Amino acid sequence: MTHLVAIDWGTSSLRGALIDAKGRVLEEQSHARGILTVEPGGFRDVFDSLFGAWMSEPGTRCLISGMAGSKQGWVEAPYCPCAAGLPEVRAKIREIEPGRIAIVPGLSDEHAGVPDVMRGEEVQIFGAVALTGLKSGLFVLPGTHNKWARVKDGRVTGFRTFMTGEFYALLSQHSILARTLDASAAFDEAAFLSGVAQADNGEGLLHNAFGARTLSLFERMSAGELASYLSGLLIGEELRTQSVRANGEVVLIGSPALTQRYALALKSLGTATRTLGSEATWAGLHALASS
Amino acid sequence: MTHLVAIDWGTSSLRGALIDAKGRVLEEQSHARGILTVEPGGFRDVFDSLFGAWMSEPGTRCLISGMAGSKQGWVEAPYCPCAAGLPEVRAKIREIEPGRIAIVPGLSDEHAGVPDVMRGEEVQIFGAVALTGLKSGLFVLPGTHNKWARVKDGRVTGFRTFMTGEFYALLSQHSILARTLDASAAFDEAAFLSGVAQADNGEGLLHNAFGARTLSLFERMSAGELASYLSGLLIGEELRTQSVRANGEVVLIGSPALTQRYALALKSLGTATRTLGSEATWAGLHALASS
Repeated sequence: MTHLVAIDWGTSSLRGALIDAKGRVLEEQSHARGILTVEPGGFRDVFDSLFGAWMSEPGTRCLISGMAGSKQGWVEAPYCPCAAGLPEVRAKIREIEPGRIAIVPGLSDEHAGVPDVMRGEEVQIFGAVALTGLKSGLFVLPGTHNKWARVKDGRVTGFRTFMTGEFYALLSQHSILARTLDASAAFDEAAFLSGVAQADNGEGLLHNAFGARTLSLFERMSAGELASYLSGLLIGEELRTQSVRANGEVVLIGSPALTQRYALALKSLGTATRTLGSEATWAGLHALASS
Repeated sequence: MTHLVAIDWGTSSLRGALIDAKGRVLEEQSHARGILTVEPGGFRDVFDSLFGAWMSEPGTRCLISGMAGSKQGWVEAPYCPCAAGLPEVRAKIREIEPGRIAIVPGLSDEHAGVPDVMRGEEVQIFGAVALTGLKSGLFVLPGTHNKWARVKDGRVTGFRTFMTGEFYALLSQHSILARTLDASAAFDEAAFLSGVAQADNGEGLLHNAFGARTLSLFERMSAGELASYLSGLLIGEELRTQSVRANGEVVLIGSPALTQRYALALKSLGTATRTLGSEATWAGLHALASS
């Protein structure tokens, strides 16, 4: 292999990187061409128009992770069940153009008869393992549907999804709370941490969320503070169930705006964090392509 | 007092009853004239047009409970703090036309610096106490914003609100779950109870809700079953925090469609229930009007 074209093709966006044989990122590009914007049968054309130049050099390999491997994507790559490390995922890579363009499968897990899934996050976890040298630990990927993954000896042994980001959007935009909450306000650390602490009161999210209504009704919090308070309630609820206190360092992977909030919440519980961004995706796809 | 005109004036609807001195309901009416449909300053006209005939007999008293006493209502009746029974609430009734038309205040409570409120449910609780003869116990009022109230010697000693009904609407209509869930399907008891049981797994609602996505993805549940499953997850989450197992009988007050679900969920936890409907409102307003 000379160059790797690494692509994270998600639901609403698409990012790509041109990577050399040593794993160095030479160029990056991103587009609002998530799989929802692509007509059935139209993936090849979109791919060629965006990555044709990078693919023109003979011997270039392309690996695509994310929702492009789902039923609604380019080609379905069935989930790889946990526990899964690089060899297990590599064995289930689905070739589109053999040896040249391929799709990375997501992972599945199951708890008491209920399945769980991820697509794309497994690549970021493998990349974080490669970049940090941490082969075991708790890896957290905040987003619309957050993932909490346990890693042992470089393999994802199990994980859970939390709809934290989507709940925040629903409650702050569509619920009764939307009337008295300003989601566009600057982040308020004190209000956020107050929400994180409140989430641990044993009353549950269905009750605590109503507090974001009454705190406004009694003029105890401003509309801007309430947005951060609600965010703290939700992230705190997520931490509550994951007994993070029992762990050492947690590895956070994602955008700075989100990982900063998790780092703050975890710090308030006495848990240290280490944070990675989009570089984890490129390192993960490079690790998968190397054999 | 000869007759009582009892009115429950809520956010989206309005119900009224003409009640004789012995508490018997002579006539009832309901209208889609919740406070949100009334222009500021327009409450008196709406009242006169709907209840003028009932009010025409001399000596008739009218008591109005619900959101008509909120800031956005006819006249604001400040909350009566818990613990509160009939005497405390009666003392804070706000007269609109002294001795003739008056508004019943709601109740407030506070836990660790976060207030909680109800408007209208307190009247239903007093009515349920009068109708059942149970002066102490746990009273549950399902709805958009459910109330769980502890009653001792006929006084509400404390309560908590749960946004269960609103969360169900948000998740079933606006979240990713809406795509694979049929909220119009007939109630499925087995799927509902499966959700109630799942809610007690210690993983929290943010995780368990995603199961309603993956169960569809893996074709383990139909779109109709998933609606009942999600309802069970939410009601189960509410029960989880309220240690209902420690209580004897729970009194449910509300519409049959909702109280039936709570009765089922509570029965699955070994807790007996007794159910009342709109008669509780009329009995409560009658009890407040009698002195």
